[in-house]
Amino acid sequence: MKTEVALGIDMGGTNTAFGFIDREGNYLAEGNIPTNKHEDITDYLKELHMAIENVLDTIRDKAVLVGIGVGAPCGNYLQGTIENASNLRWNGVIPFCDLLRDFFPSIPICLTNDANAATIGEMVYGGAKGMKDFIMITLGTGVGSGFVSNGQLIYGHDGFAGEFGHIIVSPNGRQCGCGRNGCLETYVSATGVKRTAYKMMAKYNYPSELRNIPFNEMTSKTICEAAKKGDMIAINTFKYTAKMLGEALANIVAITSPEAIFLMGGLTNAGDLLFGPTKEHMEMNMLKMFSNKVKLLPSQLTKNVAVYGAAALVWNELDK
Amino acid sequence: MKTEVALGIDMGGTNTAFGFIDREGNYLAEGNIPTNKHEDITDYLKELHMAIENVLDTIRDKAVLVGIGVGAPCGNYLQGTIENASNLRWNGVIPFCDLLRDFFPSIPICLTNDANAATIGEMVYGGAKGMKDFIMITLGTGVGSGFVSNGQLIYGHDGFAGEFGHIIVSPNGRQCGCGRNGCLETYVSATGVKRTAYKMMAKYNYPSELRNIPFNEMTSKTICEAAKKGDMIAINTFKYTAKMLGEALANIVAITSPEAIFLMGGLTNAGDLLFGPTKEHMEMNMLKMFSNKVKLLPSQLTKNVAVYGAAALVWNELDK
Repeated sequence: MKTEVALGIDMGGTNTAFGFIDREGNYLAEGNIPTNKHEDITDYLKELHMAIENVLDTIRDKAVLVGIGVGAPCGNYLQGTIENASNLRWNGVIPFCDLLRDFFPSIPICLTNDANAATIGEMVYGGAKGMKDFIMITLGTGVGSGFVSNGQLIYGHDGFAGEFGHIIVSPNGRQCGCGRNGCLETYVSATGVKRTAYKMMAKYNYPSELRNIPFNEMTSKTICEAAKKGDMIAINTFKYTAKMLGEALANIVAITSPEAIFLMGGLTNAGDLLFGPTKEHMEMNMLKMFSNKVKLLPSQLTKNVAVYGAAALVWNELDK
Repeated sequence: MKTEVALGIDMGGTNTAFGFIDREGNYLAEGNIPTNKHEDITDYLKELHMAIENVLDTIRDKAVLVGIGVGAPCGNYLQGTIENASNLRWNGVIPFCDLLRDFFPSIPICLTNDANAATIGEMVYGGAKGMKDFIMITLGTGVGSGFVSNGQLIYGHDGFAGEFGHIIVSPNGRQCGCGRNGCLETYVSATGVKRTAYKMMAKYNYPSELRNIPFNEMTSKTICEAAKKGDMIAINTFKYTAKMLGEALANIVAITSPEAIFLMGGLTNAGDLLFGPTKEHMEMNMLKMFSNKVKLLPSQLTKNVAVYGAAALVWNELDK
């Protein structure tokens, strides 16, 4: 008997990766194509379709495709569209599921944004297996999130719920790419950490190797490495980041009362530098009834996260 | 054929009101007993049971009881318990549903807290009929809330989700009854509005009739009436309240992306004094993708709200 597999497609600005994954999380085959080569999206889809069929041919004797899940920037689950994604060549509202369906007419197709896909990935394949109420936070260049309540992802009325990175934590605070000021993302993303390092260099006199690096060359990784070597500017940078994140997490716990909060993304490589003080600030600011109830955990998905997440979307859909 | 009715029980600190309500919202009969008369909860339940049976006798020829819903302070839906309610005589964790079941062994019983009951009331009988994603905020002595996503109330892992009044909006801000500082409730509840009036009297020199009233005699109603007469202290008090509420609402929209937000409770009697500037500040602080999408509405439930909410819980349960 053939194994049922889901096709997960992770559509990034530069590259589109895909993989065939079964219900247990076994990765059977994979491939990728460039995202930004074609001016016309139909040409992109033709190439993607051909690449997928070629890879599928290699496992057709043992596997049967039961669904396609897509994780895309600005992906709208309810509409199956990609809406005004600034890092893609194609503008406006793209009816991506409909377009893809022309190539795979008999296969169920669903789509969501990257953070939601990661959230469902954690629920199907990762540390949130069996959990009905949890939150996933992705700490990368930006801050994404997915909220699961009653075992279901919260998409909201328009499909765009879960913008935790854009709650305003400091009125008149840091300028954000969204056009407003003081969004959480400007503090606790990789970019936010870098901004904080410069704030700390302005505030303190501690000698620091970070003072030799221009803003445009600094990365959150550099700051993390400096902190691990005891650099006081870097250590204070992580303390401040954890304070901002911990306070915001305490607030959001009061709304959805999750069993656990998972952190994912580049910044989590800082490990205890981030998790320790974040947990501490979360507890310090927590409404008493939630004290010491909510786990703060690293994501259990470590590689091909976005492809796993997109494939997980299929199983989640089929199980509804 | 007899009409199916739900029994809604609203358990307050002083009084317990109940009513029999059908699916369409017709109020068939009602009664009430004191809550705080009996030291032993069993005596309270005996009296409640007898009062309920007596009222039920008057409609037994036309109605059949299909379920009991209870709205209680600190009510936990998942456990059917009332947990450490400071305004009840009975301490600790009370297994209320189990205790009540001894008196009504063959009737389904469910329980939740007041704000959640109001939320389900709005969904079953009020302005949120047919909505799958909305938020209810109760602005009374305190601030309560209920969040509905995917057509379901968010109870959270422990049953205590929806504490919107206790998100911290101003670190090191006003002292809150919960033991922390800066909770939203300290700004946008009836008590919060009163505190703001005093802040405004300290800040501005405008003459105001409010300056003749001691703190302990001031109510939010007095301030509302003064504002309607053009009192600048009172007007600024409502502006500030609306700013704090509007900012918090914009943040929460980014999380659950609701179709509408309903406001309920004493403070909403201020009408446009509250709704106008709250909507304005909500939109000013909204992430662009949600701009002008979210309705801000007064609750459509106006009388016996808590009893309606408790009864609605029954229909919501039966329809699951």
